Amino acid sequence: MRLRLTPREDSFYDMFADSANNLVIGARLLVELISDDADRPAIAEKMRACEHAGDEFTHAIMHRLNETFITPFDRGDIYRLAGMIDDVMDAMEEAADLVVLYQIEQFPKDVVQMVEVLERAAELTAEAMPRLRSMRELNEYWIEINRLENQADRVYRRLLAHLFSGEYEALTVMKLKEVIDRLEEAADAFEHVANTIETIAVKES
Amino acid sequence: MRLRLTPREDSFYDMFADSANNLVIGARLLVELISDDADRPAIAEKMRACEHAGDEFTHAIMHRLNETFITPFDRGDIYRLAGMIDDVMDAMEEAADLVVLYQIEQFPKDVVQMVEVLERAAELTAEAMPRLRSMRELNEYWIEINRLENQADRVYRRLLAHLFSGEYEALTVMKLKEVIDRLEEAADAFEHVANTIETIAVKES
Amino acid sequence: MRLRLTPREDSFYDMFADSANNLVIGARLLVELISDDADRPAIAEKMRACEHAGDEFTHAIMHRLNETFITPFDRGDIYRLAGMIDDVMDAMEEAADLVVLYQIEQFPKDVVQMVEVLERAAELTAEAMPRLRSMRELNEYWIEINRLENQADRVYRRLLAHLFSGEYEALTVMKLKEVIDRLEEAADAFEHVANTIETIAVKES
Repeated sequence: MRLRLTPREDSFYDMFADSANNLVIGARLLVELISDDADRPAIAEKMRACEHAGDEFTHAIMHRLNETFITPFDRGDIYRLAGMIDDVMDAMEEAADLVVLYQIEQFPKDVVQMVEVLERAAELTAEAMPRLRSMRELNEYWIEINRLENQADRVYRRLLAHLFSGEYEALTVMKLKEVIDRLEEAADAFEHVANTIETIAVKES
Repeated sequence: MRLRLTPREDSFYDMFADSANNLVIGARLLVELISDDADRPAIAEKMRACEHAGDEFTHAIMHRLNETFITPFDRGDIYRLAGMIDDVMDAMEEAADLVVLYQIEQFPKDVVQMVEVLERAAELTAEAMPRLRSMRELNEYWIEINRLENQADRVYRRLLAHLFSGEYEALTVMKLKEVIDRLEEAADAFEHVANTIETIAVKES
Repeated sequence: MRLRLTPREDSFYDMFADSANNLVIGARLLVELISDDADRPAIAEKMRACEHAGDEFTHAIMHRLNETFITPFDRGDIYRLAGMIDDVMDAMEEAADLVVLYQIEQFPKDVVQMVEVLERAAELTAEAMPRLRSMRELNEYWIEINRLENQADRVYRRLLAHLFSGEYEALTVMKLKEVIDRLEEAADAFEHVANTIETIAVKES
C-alpha cells in the first residue's frame, strides 16, 4: 500500500526526469565528439556546460530532500539515485575532457559502438524516469540496461585486447585507455542507476 | 549478553561459510593460472564460474537479510561482510580475466608469492567463518590476515620496483601492473573482510 | 538550538585539531621531498611516521566516538570527517612512497605548484578546526578550499598534457603520473574534508 502523495513531493519525479534527460544530451555529445572532423574543443565545452546543469539538478534534489518531511519513496534511495545519475554524467564529462586534453585525433572503431551503447542507455533511463510514479514496467528497463552493460563490457574488453595488440605506441595506449576506462565507468554507472531503481520498485511493490 | 537465536537465523553462518569456501576455490585457481604450461583460458573459465557461484551466495545472503526480522548480529555488518567477500572474489576474477585478455605468458617470480599469500588468506578466512557462531578465536585470525596483507604489500612494492626497472617494455609493464594491482586489491579486500569480522566480534563481546 | 556540551565531548575538537595539524606536517614533507638534492628516502621515512601518527589520531577519534553517548555534532559526520582527514594523509604518504619506490629524481616544474597548493590547503584546514567549536567563519574556509582544489585541478591537467607531450619516455610517464594522481587525490580529499565541515556547519546553524 502506498500513501497518496501531496503535490509538493511529486516534484522529485520531475527532477529525476530532468536529470535523466540531461544524460541523453551528454551521451549525444559523446557521439558527436568521436565522429571524424568534429570540433572537439567546442563539444567538450558543451559537455562541461551539460555537466554543470547536471550538478544543479542534483543539488536541487538534495536541497528538496532536506526540506521534505515525507518523501515519495525511501529518502536514502532518493539520495543514492541522484548521486548515481551524477556519477554517469561525471564519467562522460571526464571522457570528453581527456580527449581534448590529450589531443586524441583518432579512435579505434569499437569506440563508436561503446558510445552508442551509452546513448541507448541514456535514452532508456530517461524513458524509465516518468514510470517511477506508477512503478510500472521498470523491470524491462532494468533488464535492458543490464543487457547493454554486458554489451559495453564485451566491447570494452575487445578494445583493450586491440589496444595492447602492438598496433599502438605505449603513450597512445595510455591515453586511449584512460578515455575508454571512463566510458566503461559510465556504462557501469548506468547499471548502478538501474539497480537503484529496481531496489526502489521492489520495496514499493 | 546475546539472545538465543532461532534456527532460521542460524543460516547466515552457513551462508558465510559457503561464501568463504568459495574464495579458497578462487585463490587456488589463481595459483594454477600462473603456473607454467597452464591452460589459462580454461582456468579463467572456471574462475568465471566460481565468481558466479560467489554472486549467488551473496544474493542469497542479501535475500535472507531482507526477510529476517532478528539477525544474529548487526544487519549492516551482515550486509557489509557479504559485500566484502564479494569484493575479494571480483578482484581475483578480474586478475584471471586480464591474464587471458592480455595473453600474458610469463610472470615475474614474485607473482607466485603474492598469489600464495592470497591462497593462505582465503584458507584462514574460511576457517574463521564457523567461529562467528561462538565469536571465539577471531582475534588470531584478524592478526594473521593483517600480517598477510602487510606481506602482500611488501611483495607488491617489490614487484612494482622490478616492473619499472627497465627490464620490461612499456606495454608489458602496463599489462602486468594491471594484473598485480588486482591481486593487491584482493589482498586488501581480505583485510576488509577481517576488519568487519573484528568489528562484529567487538560489538558482540 | 544546541545543547550545552559536557567537558568530555569537547575533546573531539582537540582531536580534530591534532589530526589536521598532522596534515600540515605531511604537506610540508611533500614540499621538501620534491626539492632538488633532497634526501628522499629519509623524508619518505618521516612521512611514514607522520601517517602512523595520523592513524592513531583517527583511531582515538573512533574509539572516543564508541564510548560517547552525546556527541557535539552528528555521530556520522564525526566518523566521516575523521575518515576523510585520514584519506588526505594516505594520499600524501602514497605519493612520497612511490617517489622513493620508483626512484624518481626529477619532477616537472608544475609539481612544485601542486604541492604548494596542498600545503596551503593543509594550513587552512588546521586553522578551521578550532572554529568548529563556534561554527563561525567556516564558510570562508570552505570557499577557499574549493578555490584551491580548482587550482590544483588546473595544474594537474597542465601536468598531464605536459607528461604526454612526447618529452618523456613511456615508463617515466607512468611513474610520474602515478605520483601526481596521488597528489590530485590529496587535493580532492581536502575538498571532501571541507564539504563535510560545511555540511556540519549547515546542520548546526
